[in-house]
This record gives sequence, structure tokens and C-alpha cells, in this order.
Amino acid sequence: MVRAVIMPQPLQPLEIREYPDPDLKEGEVLLETLCSEVCGTDVHLYHGRLTDVPYPIIPGHVSVGRIIDIAGEVLDVEGNRVEADMVVTFLDVHETCGHCWYCLVARETTKCPNRKVYGITYPADEGLLGGWSEQILLKSGVKIIPLPEGVEAIDYIGGGCGLSTGFHAVERAGIRLGDSVVVQGSGPVGLSATAFARLAGAGMLIVIGAPEARLELAESFEADVTLDITELEPAERLERVMEITGGRGADVVIEASGNPRTVTEGLDLARDGGTCVIAGQYTDAGDISINPHHQINRKHLDVRGCWGTAFTHVYRGLHLMARYRERFPWRNMVSHTFGLDEANEALDSIENLIATKALVVPGEWKP
Amino acid sequence: MVRAVIMPQPLQPLEIREYPDPDLKEGEVLLETLCSEVCGTDVHLYHGRLTDVPYPIIPGHVSVGRIIDIAGEVLDVEGNRVEADMVVTFLDVHETCGHCWYCLVARETTKCPNRKVYGITYPADEGLLGGWSEQILLKSGVKIIPLPEGVEAIDYIGGGCGLSTGFHAVERAGIRLGDSVVVQGSGPVGLSATAFARLAGAGMLIVIGAPEARLELAESFEADVTLDITELEPAERLERVMEITGGRGADVVIEASGNPRTVTEGLDLARDGGTCVIAGQYTDAGDISINPHHQINRKHLDVRGCWGTAFTHVYRGLHLMARYRERFPWRNMVSHTFGLDEANEALDSIENLIATKALVVPGEWKP
Amino acid sequence: MVRAVIMPQPLQPLEIREYPDPDLKEGEVLLETLCSEVCGTDVHLYHGRLTDVPYPIIPGHVSVGRIIDIAGEVLDVEGNRVEADMVVTFLDVHETCGHCWYCLVARETTKCPNRKVYGITYPADEGLLGGWSEQILLKSGVKIIPLPEGVEAIDYIGGGCGLSTGFHAVERAGIRLGDSVVVQGSGPVGLSATAFARLAGAGMLIVIGAPEARLELAESFEADVTLDITELEPAERLERVMEITGGRGADVVIEASGNPRTVTEGLDLARDGGTCVIAGQYTDAGDISINPHHQINRKHLDVRGCWGTAFTHVYRGLHLMARYRERFPWRNMVSHTFGLDEANEALDSIENLIATKALVVPGEWKP
Amino acid sequence: MVRAVIMPQPLQPLEIREYPDPDLKEGEVLLETLCSEVCGTDVHLYHGRLTDVPYPIIPGHVSVGRIIDIAGEVLDVEGNRVEADMVVTFLDVHETCGHCWYCLVARETTKCPNRKVYGITYPADEGLLGGWSEQILLKSGVKIIPLPEGVEAIDYIGGGCGLSTGFHAVERAGIRLGDSVVVQGSGPVGLSATAFARLAGAGMLIVIGAPEARLELAESFEADVTLDITELEPAERLERVMEITGGRGADVVIEASGNPRTVTEGLDLARDGGTCVIAGQYTDAGDISINPHHQINRKHLDVRGCWGTAFTHVYRGLHLMARYRERFPWRNMVSHTFGLDEANEALDSIENLIATKALVVPGEWKP
Repeated sequence: MVRAVIMPQPLQPLEIREYPDPDLKEGEVLLETLCSEVCGTDVHLYHGRLTDVPYPIIPGHVSVGRIIDIAGEVLDVEGNRVEADMVVTFLDVHETCGHCWYCLVARETTKCPNRKVYGITYPADEGLLGGWSEQILLKSGVKIIPLPEGVEAIDYIGGGCGLSTGFHAVERAGIRLGDSVVVQGSGPVGLSATAFARLAGAGMLIVIGAPEARLELAESFEADVTLDITELEPAERLERVMEITGGRGADVVIEASGNPRTVTEGLDLARDGGTCVIAGQYTDAGDISINPHHQINRKHLDVRGCWGTAFTHVYRGLHLMARYRERFPWRNMVSHTFGLDEANEALDSIENLIATKALVVPGEWKP
Repeated sequence: MVRAVIMPQPLQPLEIREYPDPDLKEGEVLLETLCSEVCGTDVHLYHGRLTDVPYPIIPGHVSVGRIIDIAGEVLDVEGNRVEADMVVTFLDVHETCGHCWYCLVARETTKCPNRKVYGITYPADEGLLGGWSEQILLKSGVKIIPLPEGVEAIDYIGGGCGLSTGFHAVERAGIRLGDSVVVQGSGPVGLSATAFARLAGAGMLIVIGAPEARLELAESFEADVTLDITELEPAERLERVMEITGGRGADVVIEASGNPRTVTEGLDLARDGGTCVIAGQYTDAGDISINPHHQINRKHLDVRGCWGTAFTHVYRGLHLMARYRERFPWRNMVSHTFGLDEANEALDSIENLIATKALVVPGEWKP
Repeated sequence: MVRAVIMPQPLQPLEIREYPDPDLKEGEVLLETLCSEVCGTDVHLYHGRLTDVPYPIIPGHVSVGRIIDIAGEVLDVEGNRVEADMVVTFLDVHETCGHCWYCLVARETTKCPNRKVYGITYPADEGLLGGWSEQILLKSGVKIIPLPEGVEAIDYIGGGCGLSTGFHAVERAGIRLGDSVVVQGSGPVGLSATAFARLAGAGMLIVIGAPEARLELAESFEADVTLDITELEPAERLERVMEITGGRGADVVIEASGNPRTVTEGLDLARDGGTCVIAGQYTDAGDISINPHHQINRKHLDVRGCWGTAFTHVYRGLHLMARYRERFPWRNMVSHTFGLDEANEALDSIENLIATKALVVPGEWKP
Repeated sequence: MVRAVIMPQPLQPLEIREYPDPDLKEGEVLLETLCSEVCGTDVHLYHGRLTDVPYPIIPGHVSVGRIIDIAGEVLDVEGNRVEADMVVTFLDVHETCGHCWYCLVARETTKCPNRKVYGITYPADEGLLGGWSEQILLKSGVKIIPLPEGVEAIDYIGGGCGLSTGFHAVERAGIRLGDSVVVQGSGPVGLSATAFARLAGAGMLIVIGAPEARLELAESFEADVTLDITELEPAERLERVMEITGGRGADVVIEASGNPRTVTEGLDLARDGGTCVIAGQYTDAGDISINPHHQINRKHLDVRGCWGTAFTHVYRGLHLMARYRERFPWRNMVSHTFGLDEANEALDSIENLIATKALVVPGEWKP
């Protein structure tokens, strides 16, 4: 029997369900889960803020596991066979179809309407398709990524889905060498965006967030300046950014906070002709008011939404993590771990900002 | 003596001032004004909606004139001497400095803080530096553009400042071959954007605007479909655009209306992964409400402000006009002409949408 | 029984093979071939100039057919079911894998090493996988494109593989509104590139090629100027292009000739800071000599190879053809048709430039 | 009197000329030269390999000096007054005109035909317009850049013209986060390109060059791997790069060697769909042979010439140097210094690869 956490419906307590040992079909891989992330999306799922979620589900979209069974030959992206005992992660987004208008004509694969996401859009009745479970069944075609040499499970899960989201946001930002960059938000997405902005050529790098522990972490991710939103009003933050950037504003602003008010603040923080990436508005947290003359048209601004992640972001982010694992302390983002029976507390620790990052650890694995 | 229209202060009637015949300094050129445009900016100037305007001023930023005097050798961009009797226009933006951070480091010359604009930022006391005047003095370094063969004054002024603004908006849009495009607004900017969107490779091309006469003009600028805002509610417009675009929305939306509400409507009209150019919000007409999750982040949208025009837009727009002067009826945009003594009526005709485009004609020239 | 043309080995005469009526597997579609293109690639195949071709093969990569059988439900890119009696084409490139480094990390799908191409890389022993055959078997997952309303088989095949190759070349060129463009080559790729360059915003558009009949066709594809290589030496062509472009050279040069010497000529025809797309060097026709200082570095040139086509190019090219079928006479490119028994003559007509475009027509269809 | 080095004609020994103390005109600035670079261009000048050089000239294009006189108010790009005793450098390229087709329409300012370059295109008879002189006269409008805090003359001149050329090459390369990068050449341009490629997000970074001392320097500029051209044949270098890049080749290749044969080698070192920047072919060192099918078309390569530098490259490169002065040892590139009377030896030290970088030091300044 395999134990897994079930989210039965929004706002109902999580519970444990026991599954029979799965039978693998050709091309499938079975993981023993080492750890699975608890992220803001899980909180949103709990509150029912995402549409089209087939409750009940097994939560947990970004996970690391050890391969315990393989049906047939399964290859990774380099064309190498994956083998039993390998420690791997996988792209949570499955079934990007490759046949629809978005995949083929627009080539915006993150908008493929046929995508499925582990831990979010698979119903619990279909099996072990979420990470808060002792085992995870990887369907045929799921993109498996062996952790590169030197990257341990704790490193990768420390980055978690913020690693690829932050990577995507930075790619979308098109940072030029030496650009001043403001990152709004000091959660996992913001911190990874800080590291990748630095690697992508940022000059002055400012992180705006809270609480203090996260801002200290931001400094270890090579922010030059941190601004604490519990101490500075928006007008004061604007004034500080202007001071630091020669009165012009930042070349690039990356929103990774989730709070809709930061979007309008970000438009003010960017310089004329600058770029704002909106990467943190993953659920509907309300409307905002903007002035299209002052904040967009006259500023000649580029405002870029950033949705989802593709394989390239996870893969390249992970390989940069491998290269810079001693320089950027991704593993230090993990502040709390919970067993399967403590999943409700895990959610709570994220919702109430008690944890920077919490993990669900179904078995014996230790960070 | 030279007669010119003076706008003394916001909301005060325009009046005539007489200037002595100007003395030219080395590198200066004197034009006999053939015609000068009355555009929405002039209405905004009248209402005092632009900042840092040194009233009193001589209005009129886009103009066509005949050279009547030249002090020394003056070259056009091709390196050819300009000569007496040539019919020319000129870039209204002067003194882009070439020495500041925006010119040199960011290379966003339309954001150079040292720019001066004929008809807007030169005080009347400095001389004949606006188009609603019998003569215009072109300072040394003003970029003079002889009208190409086959383009008459009426063609160019029919495009007017909308020609370069529409051109810039289309360049900023990055239209891919066959993209569906919505242009919001059927005034001079919207109509030029329609023509240039077609030339830049638009497939399905939809113009949303009013009144009917302008929408008919939009069809002669090769819109495939026009939607009349006096007949269709925003929800109906959205429904129509969705029908036409296979339920996805437009690849590109170009806002050229000036009404801030069209900005939020435009975000809805664009497809996921599409592009919105905000080119019509030239003055502050108020705030709008947007939902950053649904309208930007989840849509993975590109929203691009578009401010000002550079020489390249005027030059290339004008040369395309020369090539396609029989295909696109720019001259037909001109619906009204006024003498210098009728400048107040000219303003009124634009403010109240009586004219599609009005001209001030100081002398004997006839369209 | 189904009759098909077999190319047994390079330099051996083509012959007819009879196949039993095919059995369809789930997801497969059977076409009655209306017509199939004879293109330069077929000549290269005959001479053994492509590597890794599994002779014997059934040639014919771009084709149009009528659906005569479908196994199960098969959808097009819009999500609509394809049905019996529809006239369709299909992307000749099949099995772009979606799992390799090129598909997923670099996202250069035209470089996927797992791609298979109908009429080129499928052995004849695997079945009806080439167009010079009475029937074509479309494997499960082959991307089927119903001809849009108003496009007849003769229109689409008139464009043929040159339609998508020309489209891709123009997309790669990044033409800016009003750019001067030189197209080198007046075969099917060059002519389609001419049409798409015009649609993408070209100003002055010059085609260099031969013979005269093709250059006349180039004018009907909206070239402004044609230069006949049988009448003008390279130095004279350069002189003419310089004259036409104000002494600077063309903003964009698109090589679509196949002759390696045109590559070095193209580098000279482009202006400083311009762009050259190399789209015609589909097989190894020898080395060339270039001067990297004068022709690349000092010119600050962009030289862009352009390999293969993706679905987006065929789809968007075809929809533009539908929109502009009366403006650009793609159907007029077809100069010769041949029956299955005349396949050797068909090859000969292309190799010796007798035909602008030749078709193989296995049945009763008439242009 | 002011002593300066004169290069009278190609292949004639350099000599000293004495100038009277200069009179400054409004807007001019006089520098006491601290040090001036001897670069490969000076060797090319000596051999007469550049066209349109108005011999005799005072060589020395990149220099650092102390302001000893200012006529009127002179501002830097930030709008701050420059003042006596400041240690400054300046953009050697002067008189980018801002009025020609290249400046205004194409906006490729490095191709402005009116540009003048200190130390290269000003005749000695016009005054102290080269750096190998006790004093340098900065004409009105020359772009002066005070060295930022923490950057000393030895740091900046260590980078020298290679700093901005390497910066431009990296900007042109469009490196994506984690890209593998090969830099061909380990001279000043190659070494700066190595540093900036690292800062711009390179993953695996390989430098190919010689001699060993430069390759050691390359490692201190954060190359991961160096390949010595005196030890490895081209085929071996290709093999090594393929091994390191998973058999695909490098995502980006930056040619900074000056040897034309490296261009064709670079085309082979790049992966399919990759990018080659050609930045080192500053003079005509002969033709090369390439295969346009295998090396460009089939590879779907981007080959980008990179000519000259603009202010933005110097300014941003210098500010990154200030930020990372302890990380990248630019000052260590300087291996030799020479007095004005030793200018012939200075040239010789560069031509014969004795020096990594040599300086001319007209006065008392010490590194």
C-alpha cells in the first residue's frame, strides 16, 4: 500500500488515502518520493482560487524522488537511459500536446490548453499523480531530469518551482549587461529571480520584500540593496530606488510578490523605456488602478506577463544551480519539513509566512 | 510683417500676432507655410493638459512649407543640399541632444529630456517656431525632409503626425506575417496604424472606432472589419473579435484612441501570448482598473507603451506613403481647412469630432 | 493495388512499384493523391547529394490529396475533425520528437535529429510514404491541413515547398517596414520569398535571376526591379543595386538560388548593418571564398542560415495565400505536369530548367 | 612645448614632434596624458593596413588623462560638470554626426561615415589629437567619462579598447542564461569578451588561444577551459569542444583573434542554431574558404559581424569594471610600459606578441 495526501475540496482538511501498489505501463517510471514542495499555489488550491481543478487531488507539483521501477526503456533529454536508484526530478507540466494552434502556430507552449500538471490538474482517482505521496507515478512521456552531479535533492527542492519561474521571469526580462534590476518579492520566486538576474548581467540589484529573514537571504542571493516593505512606505521605496538609479528608475523590474498593488508600484519603479515583468500574479487577487498615460504610454514601457514554465527553464536553471551551488544557497530556503500526516500544518506554515519554504517528506529522507 | 496665431494661455482664445521679417543665422532655413495640422495635441494644449508648455506659443507642430530663404549650406539626411522653392516638411522634434544618458546609454532617443518640439515647447517670444503662421523658421540642425516625388503637401499633411505615430506603433508591435490585428481608434493615428499594419504583414485587420465616416475611411485603409463603438458595447466587441479570431483573440492590439478605457478593453481583445501597443494615451485622461492576473500574467501578454517619434519613423513612413499613395488615401483624411483668423474654429472642429482632420492654411495654398 | 514511383538508387531510372491496398491503423489517414511536387530536392536525391537517404524511396514530399479513409478520430490544428472527401495537404516533416535537447532546450525544432520527411527519409518498403503515388498514407500524428476556402490544389502546389521555405526565409530576415530587399534566385523559393517580402513590408524589392520567363513571374509577384543574370555580370548587378539603394546596398538580402557563389555576392549587395538570409544552400554545391573583414566584420552584417520549415510556416503561408490568391499568382508557377510513368521526364524538366515547376499527377486530377 | 609621437607614414620609424601649448576654444578640455594604449590597430596603422588614414598622425586612441584646463562649462553624460584634476577617459570616436542616414534612419551609429577617431583619423597637423603625447586636446563634444570611484587608470587602460570591443561582441552575441560560449583569441579583446560573457550568463566558457601566459590570464577572467593553439590542431580543438558540449558544439562562438582562419573554424565550433560573432577581423588579413551548405544554411546559424563601439559599450563596460574590479584582473593585462621615446619598441612588443598589453606613458605616471 502507498500512502498519499488528498485535498478533498477547497477549504476542507487534507486527509490520507491508501493506494494499492501501482502497475506500470510501458514507458512509465515509479518514484519513491524524497521530498515535495509546499508552495503558494498549494495555498491557492486550498482556497479554491484556481479554476478547473478536479478535486479531490494529490497536491505537490515539484518533487524529487528515487527511481524504484521502470517499465521499458525511458530516456532523458540527452538521450541517456534513466535507471533504477537515480535521484531525479521531472517537469510537472505534462502533455503539452504538440498538435494545437498554441504549440504549432504561435509556438507559445506554456499556453497549450491540453497541458496537465502533476499535483494540480490530475484527479486523485487517476492514481499517484502528485508529490505529497510516498510514491509518484510518472506517465509515459513525462520529462524526467536526473539531478546533475553535485546537486542534491535539498538543493533542487530549495529552488523548487521558484527556480524555473524565476528563471523564466529573468529570461523574459531581457536584461542587458549592467542593467539595474528591482525584484519585487523575497519569496522563492523572487529569490531565484535575484540569483538569475545577477547571473544574467544585472548591475545594481535591489530586492523589495519582507520579512527580515528573507531579505537576509536575498543578500546571500547577491542583492546589493534590500528594502523592507514593513519599514518603508511605497513612496519611500520609490524615492530610494530613484536615488540609487540616478533619478531615472530601474532598467528592469521583476514582480514576484503576488500582491496586485506591487504591479502598479513596479510601473513607477521602472525607468522610461524600461521593462516590467509580471510573474507573481498567479491567481486573481483583485484589480488594481493604473494610469495608462503616466505609467505606460509616456514611459514607453514594456510590460511583460510571464506565465508557466517550459522544460528549458527547469533544465537550464538546474544546470546553473549545479554550476553555482556554492555561490547561491538555494538549499537555505528550506526552513520547515512536514510528514504526510502534517500536511495541514505544512499549508498553514506557508499561508502565514511562517516558513520561507516548507517541504512534505513522506519517508525517511532528511535534508 | 509675418502673421502668426498665438495661444496665450490655456482656455484663452487664440489671437494673431505680427512678427517682423526674420533674420536668418547660419544654417537656418525659412519656410512659407503651405499648411499646418490641427491635431488632438493642440486641443490638449488649449486645455492645459500638457506640462511645461511655455505659453504663449505658436501652435502647429506638423507642417509643410516652401523654402523661401536659406542661410548657408543646409543638407538633408541623404546629404543633398536643400534649395529655395523646395516643398519640405521637417521633424517637429528638435534638439535631441546626443549627449545625455537616454541618447547615449539607453539609446531611447524619444526619451531625451532635452528635446524641443515646434509648436509645443518653444515660446512665442523666441520667434516663428510653430506652424500656424505665415512663415516658419527652421533653426540650424532641424531635420528637413523634402517631399519625395509624387507626394504632395496634401498627402503628407493628410497623414500628419498620425503618420509617424502610427508607424512607430506598428514598428513597436512587431507584427508577424499573417497576424490578426485590432486597431482601437479610427482617428488619424488609428488610420495610419491600419495602413502600416497592413503593409507590415497583418492578416485579419479589425478597426474599432466611430463615427461611421471614419470607419468607411478605415476600410479604404484596408481594414477587413470595422466595429462601431456607437453601436456595439464592449462585451459585444469582444465577442465579435473572438468570433473572427477563432476564439483566441487578436495576435496584436494597437491602442490609438486616447480613451483610457480602451486600454483595459485591449488587454481582453489580445490572445494569450499576444501584444498590446499603447500609443494613444498622450495625455492624462484618468486612471483605469485592470486585473493583473487575468489580463497580464496569465495571458503572458506583452504590453508596450509607445512614446513620441524619431526621424526614422517620419522618413520611412513618408517614403512608404510615396510608394503607396494611390493605394492608401491619406489625403482623404483632410476634411476641413481654416485660415489663420479661424484658428479658434479649427480647434473646435477637432475637439468636437466635426473634422476627421483640420488644417490651418495661412496663405493661398489649396489642397 | 496502388501504383507508386520508386527511386531505387541514385542515378538509376525511376520505376513503378505496385503496393497492396493499405490497412490503416488507429489515427492514420489515407489520401488519394491529386498532385505532388517535383522540386530541386528530388533532383538532389536522384544525384545522391543528400546523406542518410534510405533508398529505395517513393519521392514526393509536398503533395495535395483527397481523404479517402480515416481510422478513428483525427483532428487538425484548429481542433476540427478531418473528414472523408476533404482536400488537404500535410506537413512533410513528421516525428519532430518533442523530447530531445533541440526540441526542448534550444527550441530549434527544425534541427530535431528525429525528424522524418515524407518522400525523403522513409524507405519504400515501409509503405506509401511519398507523394509520387496514387495514394499516400498519413501516419498517426502527421499534421494535416485542410486547404482553406478559396485555395485550390493548384494554388497550394504552385507554392509547394517553396511557399514555406520562402516564408521561413522572410520571417528569418526580420524585414522592417520599408526595407529595400534583394531576393537572389527566381525559382519557387525565390518567388515565394518575393511575395512574402512584399507582404512583410518591403519597400524597393529586387529579384536577381533567370530565365526571362521567371523574371516576368517575379514581377507578377511584385518585384519592383528584376536583374537577369544571363545579361549582367556580378559587378554590374552590384552597381545596379547600389544605384537603386542610394549607394548603400540593400537592407536585406535573401539568398534562394542554390548556387554557392550567390552567397558571397549577397554579402556585397547588403548594406552595412544589413541582413543576409542564406536559404538556398540545401545541398553541398561546393566551397566559396569570402573576406571576413570586408564582407562581415566591417559591414557589421547579420548572416542567417535558414534550415527547414516548421508547421507554423506552412500554416501561415497557406492562410496568406488564401487571403491574397488573386494578388499573387502562385498557380502560374506550375508549367508542366507528368503522369507516374513519366517521372524520369519530370526530374529532367526540373534539372534542366525546362519547367519553372513540374508536378506529378498520378490520377485524373487536372490543374 | 608639448612632446608627441608622430607616425609619419606607414613603415617609417616613429619620431617626436614638439607642439606649442594649445589654446582652448569654448567647450574644449585639455588632458595631461597619464597613459595611452598600444593596440593591434597601431600595428596595422604602422603597416598601412587601414584606408583613409591622414598620415602623419599622432597614434594612441584609448587613453587616460588628468584634466588640466577647461574652456567653459563641459558636462559628462550624467549632466555633471567635469572639473580640473579629474582623471578621465573619453570616447575615441568623435563626431558621430547625428544627421546622416546611418545615424537617423538605420540607427547604426557605428557605421556613421562622418565619424572621426582620435589617434587614427586626425592628421598630426590639426593638433594634439592622439594619445601618445604629453597632452591631449579634447574637442568640443568629445564624450568625456570620469573614471568611476575605485577604478584607477591602470584598471581602465588594462581593459583599453578591448573592454568596449569585447563588451560590444558579447552584447551582439545575445547570450542566453547558461549558454556554452567559445571565445577565439586570448588577447585583450578575447579576455574582456571572456569576462563579459561570464557576466552575461555564460555556462561553460572555453577560450582558445596562446601563449600560455594569456591562457592563464583567461582563467583568471573565469574561463572554465582553455585550449592552446600551439598544442592542439584545429581538428583536436573541434573534438574537445564537441566533447565538452555534449557533441553539439557551442551555443555561442565569439571570434576575437584577428586570424581569418578562425572564422571558418568558429562556424564549425558552433552548434546548429547557434550564433557566431565576428569581432576580430578589424583589418583585411585575407580571404577564407567556407562551405555555405554545411557551415551556414544547414546549421541554421546566425553569423554577426561586430564593428566599432558606441558610447554605451564604453560606459557600461567601465561601470561593470568598477563593480567587479576585484573579480576580474583587468590591470594584469598590462605587461609593458614605454616612454614617448620608446614608441618604436612599443609597437614592436605588440607586433611580436612580446607584450600582452603595452602602454605609452608620456610622463611620470606609474601603473
